[in-house]
Amino acid sequence: METSSKKTEKNTDSKNTKASGKGTKYRQTKRLKAGERKQMILDEARNIILSEGFAQLSARSVAEKSGIRLATLQYYFSTKEELFRAVFEDVVRQERERIEQLRDDTPLKTPASNLKARVVGHLRADTHEETAGLFYQLWAMAYLDDYAKSIMDEFYERNLGVISELISAYNEDLSELECRSKAVMIIAFLEGLTLFVHGDRKNAPELENIEDKVVNMIFNMVNATEHQWVFDAD
Amino acid sequence: METSSKKTEKNTDSKNTKASGKGTKYRQTKRLKAGERKQMILDEARNIILSEGFAQLSARSVAEKSGIRLATLQYYFSTKEELFRAVFEDVVRQERERIEQLRDDTPLKTPASNLKARVVGHLRADTHEETAGLFYQLWAMAYLDDYAKSIMDEFYERNLGVISELISAYNEDLSELECRSKAVMIIAFLEGLTLFVHGDRKNAPELENIEDKVVNMIFNMVNATEHQWVFDAD
Repeated sequence: METSSKKTEKNTDSKNTKASGKGTKYRQTKRLKAGERKQMILDEARNIILSEGFAQLSARSVAEKSGIRLATLQYYFSTKEELFRAVFEDVVRQERERIEQLRDDTPLKTPASNLKARVVGHLRADTHEETAGLFYQLWAMAYLDDYAKSIMDEFYERNLGVISELISAYNEDLSELECRSKAVMIIAFLEGLTLFVHGDRKNAPELENIEDKVVNMIFNMVNATEHQWVFDAD
Repeated sequence: METSSKKTEKNTDSKNTKASGKGTKYRQTKRLKAGERKQMILDEARNIILSEGFAQLSARSVAEKSGIRLATLQYYFSTKEELFRAVFEDVVRQERERIEQLRDDTPLKTPASNLKARVVGHLRADTHEETAGLFYQLWAMAYLDDYAKSIMDEFYERNLGVISELISAYNEDLSELECRSKAVMIIAFLEGLTLFVHGDRKNAPELENIEDKVVNMIFNMVNATEHQWVFDAD
């Protein structure tokens, strides 16, 4: 919420300064602290990625939209890739904070409630317009570009570790490999849901109470034994 | 396989003709029948989307790479959007043919085996490099562009209908809405798996026997009753 109100403020500012010329704009942003200036650059870069796609992101366009000199931008982020990584990590950090908040707000602290909080947090992140849009860009870029692929691999590896530990705490009988294997399927399920739970599609009747249904399905996945159902389809 | 061998042939041709100038190239492609010329355009457009992303697709780049005049390209596809739709439909048609082949090759024709054939076919499509790459582009574009969103919505609506009928045939006790709700979750699961089952990631130990595990999980989803597990996490 903090970020979005800041954004609105800034947008208004930048409209006002447009009329009074570039000079005023540079002077205004000069007064910002380094941390604020960095966040402003990240917000503008994120806006460009989300409204035009990563292909349209350039140091020049970000510098122009955030009203700073190109050299200043390059002082903070020397390449386009570095800028994308920072935007992505900023969004992931916001999501992580929401998930942690949700976990802290859950009265019970059992392995089941911890796993549930994580799943619900992840699903709520999927429904978040901007997070969804940024992940679509990440997936598309990771296919084309090794640098983006390494960001994506790191992200899923970290998630896989966290979810597989939560599964292991919930069901101590599972081997590490079984936990990781279930964790991959759960992450795939949650990531795929992104395609359905944001935008106008989320109001479809089949998506009513989707949060409860998904949690139920995921506990089903965690509790399933291998080869439970396959036999009758062969 | 047919398509890729044709591609190699064509690429060699285009290298040869580059030296002898544009004229030769145009004359060569003139001998092609309309259907072949159209397929050649689609193959080149797909190659550009997969190697550079949709943003880099232009009528000019496709015409140049397929060695035809811009006007000829525009005769077949008058806009970039029309071209993307045709590329996407071409890939979807190839996948559908593979799924139908798999269904026809399955000895049993029970509701369970039909559902299983569909799931396995979908999962194998996910592991297909080019299909995965094209879907990443579609998802990213659908977020930015209404035209791509309508292609994506149509595609998932059709899939939702097919899978929900297969579920209904397998478990006649489920209401239409329950079938659609399970179908959304199954499609989400299968689409999300794309992120893990192609490229080098597919060789990770946790993805061993993934096909059997996914089929098992999906039959679990279909057979699950609502609120089976949620209670113990609250």
